Amino acid sequence: MTDQALRTTLAYFEAWTGGDFDKAMTYVSPDITCDAPAGRLQGAEAFRAFMGPFAGMLRSAGLRAAYGDDSTALLMYDTETALVAHAPGAERHTVHDGLITHVQIIFDRLPFEEARRGADQAR
Amino acid sequence: MTDQALRTTLAYFEAWTGGDFDKAMTYVSPDITCDAPAGRLQGAEAFRAFMGPFAGMLRSAGLRAAYGDDSTALLMYDTETALVAHAPGAERHTVHDGLITHVQIIFDRLPFEEARRGADQAR
Repeated sequence: MTDQALRTTLAYFEAWTGGDFDKAMTYVSPDITCDAPAGRLQGAEAFRAFMGPFAGMLRSAGLRAAYGDDSTALLMYDTETALVAHAPGAERHTVHDGLITHVQIIFDRLPFEEARRGADQAR
Repeated sequence: MTDQALRTTLAYFEAWTGGDFDKAMTYVSPDITCDAPAGRLQGAEAFRAFMGPFAGMLRSAGLRAAYGDDSTALLMYDTETALVAHAPGAERHTVHDGLITHVQIIFDRLPFEEARRGADQAR
């Protein structure tokens, strides 16, 4: 057993939290499936449309824990974003041949919804 | 390096998802700190007041991934609850001497808030 999946996942994580989302996408399979809080996303472009804007409003990120083996990786991190000060997340990745083919991502949408609601009311 | 933390975490998980929340609490330190989406909880009674009601409305649960070492464990799971059909969660545990001393738990509060809002409107 190797940690091949974990290495791919960490390279992806370091790229997007380091501000290079295009590099992050080089670790993502064109046929990725992503199970996000709002539902299932299919394909790299849908994944980019979901994660790209989040990466774009990132102020800082810190890895809390990361484990994996040759096919699966699991990580938890904290983020600070322009919209929400404290937005931790967890992701489970399936990796084949150095590409992430499946992501399950968990985060709390409530503070993002509340921030948007507040912005709408302030208009 | 052993997997002592992971074994404690899995025993806790199996107890609460198996309907025995009192047994689950035997793996929890009296001085536990829990970082939950709504903020920090301090002590076993606050933790019980938070997790107990969730465990009580659980219909089914499935472990998606679990990793750990001698001091830390990380797991992701799906749940089906009476309030929300699909409510996945992720937890990072710190374990000392067979007791969980810190939990960071991530889940999406939005569907729970929406379900409660719907129930309020139906009154």
